[in-house]
Amino acid sequence: MDKLFVVKIGGNIIENSTKLESFLQDFSELKGFKILIHGGGKKATAMANKLNIPVQMIEGRRITDEDNLNIITMMYGGEINKNIVVKLQALNCNAIGLSGADGNLISAVKRSVKDIDYGFVGDITEINLNLFLLLLENALTPVCCAISHDKNGQLLNTNADTIASSIAKSLSSHFEVSLWYCFEKNGVLGSISDEQSVIELINPEIYDDLKSKEMINLGMIPKIDNCFDALKNGVNMVKIGSPKMIKINEVHTTLIL
Amino acid sequence: MDKLFVVKIGGNIIENSTKLESFLQDFSELKGFKILIHGGGKKATAMANKLNIPVQMIEGRRITDEDNLNIITMMYGGEINKNIVVKLQALNCNAIGLSGADGNLISAVKRSVKDIDYGFVGDITEINLNLFLLLLENALTPVCCAISHDKNGQLLNTNADTIASSIAKSLSSHFEVSLWYCFEKNGVLGSISDEQSVIELINPEIYDDLKSKEMINLGMIPKIDNCFDALKNGVNMVKIGSPKMIKINEVHTTLIL
Repeated sequence: MDKLFVVKIGGNIIENSTKLESFLQDFSELKGFKILIHGGGKKATAMANKLNIPVQMIEGRRITDEDNLNIITMMYGGEINKNIVVKLQALNCNAIGLSGADGNLISAVKRSVKDIDYGFVGDITEINLNLFLLLLENALTPVCCAISHDKNGQLLNTNADTIASSIAKSLSSHFEVSLWYCFEKNGVLGSISDEQSVIELINPEIYDDLKSKEMINLGMIPKIDNCFDALKNGVNMVKIGSPKMIKINEVHTTLIL
Repeated sequence: MDKLFVVKIGGNIIENSTKLESFLQDFSELKGFKILIHGGGKKATAMANKLNIPVQMIEGRRITDEDNLNIITMMYGGEINKNIVVKLQALNCNAIGLSGADGNLISAVKRSVKDIDYGFVGDITEINLNLFLLLLENALTPVCCAISHDKNGQLLNTNADTIASSIAKSLSSHFEVSLWYCFEKNGVLGSISDEQSVIELINPEIYDDLKSKEMINLGMIPKIDNCFDALKNGVNMVKIGSPKMIKINEVHTTLIL
């Protein structure tokens, strides 16, 4: 099987133009099939502030009312996505920017209200494997923003980590998939205050052990759960680290089963 | 040859949600191959006003400085494009929203400064015919916003009428193309104050005669020149009128050679 890289970049990279350009240079040099996934929550929050639109976060998750959904559509689907695409084009990477509505790429259902009403937030139901295959086979590099749709005319804000793992799982039927999460740390840290404390390898046993010792930052738990879910569903390899890891053999965390 | 409809909608339709939804319903029912092109200048201006960003227009054309380019990218590429796409998806039209940077769809050069510096405005140099063919052959309906790129990392604001005619001309090598401009009037009017004064047929002789009698509104002249240019370069038929003309045989202007 051919190799496919599914790379997700976090908001701290997107909002720093030097970091972003350096990352895009490295990404453009990755040989073979690849897909980029981005959110951009910090930029969306900054725009909401400029427009005097309140932003409500609960446990790090955005409550997406109609105004915030419009901002997300403008920022993720427009400014961030198109600026990434135009820069990749200049680097000879034939990028094509897409939301989950485009070509029915990512369908979802609006999250049902239990304790918290998250608003226009989507839980993914289907990845359009055929469209990804069509694009990749034609030497296009999909650049996906963190928006899905419900097939009934509603855009939905959707977690970019989950989009990345859902795409990776779906495409593992046709590729040997490496899923890389790039963020502002060098990997999963054993001690949140020590950048050098990267845990280089995590398997389910190590993970259980780290959790029982409360050595994993709470915010990392859904991310790591997401990674193991991907590995259990066909993804070959998952890495968490700084954007530099895609180019050089920088210290990072590798997750295996 | 198969038929292809290239339909451009103006800002007055985009900013009126009732008109837009009615148009999208009709557009979704057009049988066969089709492409939609939109701008959204009025929505961009409204957003600039909200963000206290000055908008300078000279002879109806926007001076696109960096701040205004960002707004255009957010609004055309993001909010407007994705909201059209998600609505078309709900109408069983497999729309895919694209800027000219996506897949290198529309390349351009930044307009050189003569008397006026229009800023980040692009004059089209190339349409990516192969990508349009790939998408259309796979039952996708491209929805193109009025943004091109210079292949060197710069997005460029580009006249939506010109994008529509450039796409129509390029695709006329493979399709029998009808190019339809939908706007707030019922067609080219003989008297600007009389909505009933639609000139139903314009050929080059009639056009010269109307111009000599000063019966054509000045703002319409570049639009009509654009239409004749398309007809001279392979486009089969050009129509100008209200969005309703794509569904019913509403009065409109037909241009022929």
